[in-house]
Amino acid sequence: MKLAKRMERMQASEIRELLKLTAQPEIISFAGGLPAPELFPVEEIAKISHDLILKEGRQLLQYGTTEGRVTLREKIAKRMADKYKTVVDPDDILITTGSQQCLDFAGKIFLDPGDVVLCESPSYLGALNAFNAYEPVFVEVPTDEGGLIPEELDKILETTPRCKFIYVIPDFQNPTGRTWTLERRKKFMEVVNKYNLPVLEDNPYGELRYEGEIMPSLKSMDIKGLVMFLGTFSKIFCPGLRLGWVAAEHSVLQEFVKVKQSADLHTSNFDQGVADAYMENYDLDEHVRDIVARYRKRRNLIIQTMEKEFPKGTEWTHPQGGLFLWMTFPEGVSALKVFEKCIEMKVAGVIGDAFYPNKKTDRSMRINYSNMPEDKIVEGIKRMAKAIRDCMA
Amino acid sequence: MKLAKRMERMQASEIRELLKLTAQPEIISFAGGLPAPELFPVEEIAKISHDLILKEGRQLLQYGTTEGRVTLREKIAKRMADKYKTVVDPDDILITTGSQQCLDFAGKIFLDPGDVVLCESPSYLGALNAFNAYEPVFVEVPTDEGGLIPEELDKILETTPRCKFIYVIPDFQNPTGRTWTLERRKKFMEVVNKYNLPVLEDNPYGELRYEGEIMPSLKSMDIKGLVMFLGTFSKIFCPGLRLGWVAAEHSVLQEFVKVKQSADLHTSNFDQGVADAYMENYDLDEHVRDIVARYRKRRNLIIQTMEKEFPKGTEWTHPQGGLFLWMTFPEGVSALKVFEKCIEMKVAGVIGDAFYPNKKTDRSMRINYSNMPEDKIVEGIKRMAKAIRDCMA
Repeated sequence: MKLAKRMERMQASEIRELLKLTAQPEIISFAGGLPAPELFPVEEIAKISHDLILKEGRQLLQYGTTEGRVTLREKIAKRMADKYKTVVDPDDILITTGSQQCLDFAGKIFLDPGDVVLCESPSYLGALNAFNAYEPVFVEVPTDEGGLIPEELDKILETTPRCKFIYVIPDFQNPTGRTWTLERRKKFMEVVNKYNLPVLEDNPYGELRYEGEIMPSLKSMDIKGLVMFLGTFSKIFCPGLRLGWVAAEHSVLQEFVKVKQSADLHTSNFDQGVADAYMENYDLDEHVRDIVARYRKRRNLIIQTMEKEFPKGTEWTHPQGGLFLWMTFPEGVSALKVFEKCIEMKVAGVIGDAFYPNKKTDRSMRINYSNMPEDKIVEGIKRMAKAIRDCMA
Repeated sequence: MKLAKRMERMQASEIRELLKLTAQPEIISFAGGLPAPELFPVEEIAKISHDLILKEGRQLLQYGTTEGRVTLREKIAKRMADKYKTVVDPDDILITTGSQQCLDFAGKIFLDPGDVVLCESPSYLGALNAFNAYEPVFVEVPTDEGGLIPEELDKILETTPRCKFIYVIPDFQNPTGRTWTLERRKKFMEVVNKYNLPVLEDNPYGELRYEGEIMPSLKSMDIKGLVMFLGTFSKIFCPGLRLGWVAAEHSVLQEFVKVKQSADLHTSNFDQGVADAYMENYDLDEHVRDIVARYRKRRNLIIQTMEKEFPKGTEWTHPQGGLFLWMTFPEGVSALKVFEKCIEMKVAGVIGDAFYPNKKTDRSMRINYSNMPEDKIVEGIKRMAKAIRDCMA
């Protein structure tokens, strides 16, 4: 069988093989991006599901509209206004099968082979894979502690043809855990406005803030209708339901709707109904406060343990929220070697190389701290410390 | 914003505008492909959902594997063997967000711009739209009462370069309601084997047979691993859950898995769990027998009413199963005019032109008989008869 050219780019990679190793049983895994399952509101969802199906099963189990459940879109619009001061019309929101689907759709809507996608360096692996199917060239924009550096973006845009959009995660970025400063956000919007560059603003973790002030979203500063805001219920509710959304200027949203219709018709009515009914009958804010309290504790614990256990020269970010931090090993220490040593010791992170679309050898590792219980966090970091020391020797 | 070239092909079409008209309230609609909602096992699903979430909520609400729930894939494999004598390994099945998603994935896996997709003439609109996003050339293979004509396919394949796959619906085809004869199936497989042409066999309606013998699937005759079999729970259970699957030779299935991972990570665990638990705790065969009894009655009623009401010269197919029949108006009668007249009279079918990928003016209309209750079927066909007579006058 002769496959499309794009499939050559999607073949099994070295990175994919490494990721497989992290899924071995008995491993203490800081590798995934999984929420803590012990916090899922299981009993509430059981009750809601039952009542909802009895109440509106005939509609819920039938085909639905591509755009998604109206009352859920209204609640999302309200939440975006409350949490991020981002005002959008419910009609400019499309419910998707997880926010991963928005990434695929953005690629489909904007990219011809050879077009340029800009992204932070490093960036979210799953997004890079989604865009990759549409055969773009990736151009990485340098970042530092304050987030993406707008002046660098300006320079790139001045000299690079065929830039179709930029993909960014301004809040608790995946993989670094960093958050853009307010000043950077403003400057960034100036630059994209200057070039009329569409922006894919991915915000899966924004509500999971453990300290400091919420930053305004890029979408809230968007005067030209350039920003497409992606949200998800995966981190504030539960990911097994596959519920995300995109909010965008009306004409752009219509392109997403068209693509959604031919991709999977619509998002599960059942999943949409459950999230809607949960927000109707329970306090999602209170639930998010519980998640935040737990993850804050885990973030504090993992950093304390790192401070205590890690050999000098290894550094890490101090995220104000989200699920990840980013470790950098001392000069001369190979992240791949540390990774291999970690797997031997039954502990795992994700090797930094995975987060650069253009091949790169980095001294970094992404660490997730939301999924493992406290005792495993301590034990895992101890093992990792030993792996690093072994590689330094 | 500069969009990808493919989006030009996906813009609002005349057909799309016509379809919108069929969704007006108070219309008696034979236009959609909706199952009868009064048959959904609402109380059973309410109970199942509740119990399932209490029992395994922590896993069910967490991220899942891309391939899908193991016990559900096992049940699907067993069902394919029982119903279609089609033996596949559960590991060669991928659960998808409706079978529509399989169509999108097939386009993504096989098609570069300008590649050829073969299909029956006419064929399912939703499939054509899904493939269209990957910018193929469509080549239509002639059909008659016995289904696709293999000799015609042979001729086309002999002279047409870049044929990447053929899309077919051998059982109760959408839109015609026709079923391929056994002889045609055998001959078809000889032709595709000769050219090593991959086959997308879509079988959403196969279990909804109202009379006659079940035909073996193409997949069951597939000795070279060329056939990808698409199935769905939308017509035998309920579509609001978004559950379909593809069964294919192992290496091909792996391409679907890769594409699925970057498209939406995995199908809703909740939806998967509900279908699995329903089959575990209730008798899906019995449920399908109820559906078949109801739809058979509706098919009989709609045909009887057509025989009684329609003016001479209008013809229609006599489907042995599925959801659709195909009407052809007398020479000189415009389907578009009949359609417009029907909309005035608050009744709707889908104009035949919609089902040809290459622009064509046809004298046909697709009629769905599963969704409307009996009294509306009679009233709707009476109105339609008047519309046809008006157009003949």
